Amino acid sequence: MSKQQAFKAVTKVPAYQLVEESIRGMIMGGELSPGDLLPPETELAVQLEVTRPTVREAFRSLEGAGLLKRGPRRRMVVTAPSPRIVHNAMHEAIMLHGVTYRELWEINMALEPTAAALAASKITPELLDEIEANLARTAECLDNPAKLVECDVEFHELIAKAADNHALLLAKEPLGELFFPAYGTVISNIGPGERLFEAHTKIFQALKKGNEKQAQIWMTKHIRDFLRGCELAGVNIDAPVNSNV
Amino acid sequence: MSKQQAFKAVTKVPAYQLVEESIRGMIMGGELSPGDLLPPETELAVQLEVTRPTVREAFRSLEGAGLLKRGPRRRMVVTAPSPRIVHNAMHEAIMLHGVTYRELWEINMALEPTAAALAASKITPELLDEIEANLARTAECLDNPAKLVECDVEFHELIAKAADNHALLLAKEPLGELFFPAYGTVISNIGPGERLFEAHTKIFQALKKGNEKQAQIWMTKHIRDFLRGCELAGVNIDAPVNSNV
Repeated sequence: MSKQQAFKAVTKVPAYQLVEESIRGMIMGGELSPGDLLPPETELAVQLEVTRPTVREAFRSLEGAGLLKRGPRRRMVVTAPSPRIVHNAMHEAIMLHGVTYRELWEINMALEPTAAALAASKITPELLDEIEANLARTAECLDNPAKLVECDVEFHELIAKAADNHALLLAKEPLGELFFPAYGTVISNIGPGERLFEAHTKIFQALKKGNEKQAQIWMTKHIRDFLRGCELAGVNIDAPVNSNV
Repeated sequence: MSKQQAFKAVTKVPAYQLVEESIRGMIMGGELSPGDLLPPETELAVQLEVTRPTVREAFRSLEGAGLLKRGPRRRMVVTAPSPRIVHNAMHEAIMLHGVTYRELWEINMALEPTAAALAASKITPELLDEIEANLARTAECLDNPAKLVECDVEFHELIAKAADNHALLLAKEPLGELFFPAYGTVISNIGPGERLFEAHTKIFQALKKGNEKQAQIWMTKHIRDFLRGCELAGVNIDAPVNSNV
């Protein structure tokens, strides 16, 4: 073996990625904050000693990550990523890794009762009114699966909102959405939603009284019921979320 | 007002985003699966009636989202996004939205006990051995804050692994990492980790017996203790995660 063979190939990192990492580092390190304007493309290219297309490429990548958006006079503005970004990343990972409905349900068993307990201690009168209105609409569509699914999803979204925890919203929202197909099947196959309505009513009453324990207990029952509903409706909850159930 | 003014500006979507959405749609719809090779850039450009740089741009964006990676002979291969992608998206959103330690703690109170309960029913002999080895190392560093934090983090990672739920790992990992600075402060300020060691031991014993209830109860106590530790150590848990505590 000649000495030359001892040299290792250098891993080339594209210039735009270096620019991207540098800007990302400044944002995450607090040197740049949401709302701050970046210098124009040409100016930044001179400062960083790269070409203008390289800067543009880095901007696009950071736009994709939700850390920049186009602001006044085509200048880039630093932004806090919208929940959509986390949502899509999680959605894609769950779909492509073959995560099953049971795995999602196990997490819902952790997050939903916690959301209900937090909501009981933090809910505002406005959100209590919204949940009451949601219950009234739910009562009217117990025999209409499509509308009932809609009301049910809204109910859980209102609870998550009332829990007033941004990290919880980030984690919970994509999981809820991925459940929709199963909700639909369960609700259309096992008929009128009286059991669902009873659980929602008990949870609402617990929130109204600020009773964390009761809110948590009833939400746990409600989520456990869903698993039973899947069995009754013949939904295979060990199937991956990306299949039809 | 002249009639001309009634025309609305057309929102221009860049061509690369159209290409990106089309490929993403094929992946999420199952027409393309992880492992599939995409046609070469030039061929795809002809098929889609766009330029080659447009295709390249779409590829880069999908690479950033973890849906493509470079494969043999520079062809693109469809991939399932690595947990890192979700991790980074959540990390950035939490940092930039000013989420507080308390909000993260509230979610940990939901996810950690659930992980422990799941682990009790699913843990493998290999992972039980790893946790036992982790406990032995923990016992030796109760007075060494830096090493104790390391052992603690590893303990919780092993439990999450034992819970064998991919969605839980996706949601839990970034939350755990964001807690590190607070762990460090609490552990160095309140001294020897006997209380932590006792909780870890009880959890291990519950896992060994396959006792879900006990695993959940002890993990709940352990996470609640952390909040008490923050108070004793003077950590302001209502501060945003992006500040120093």
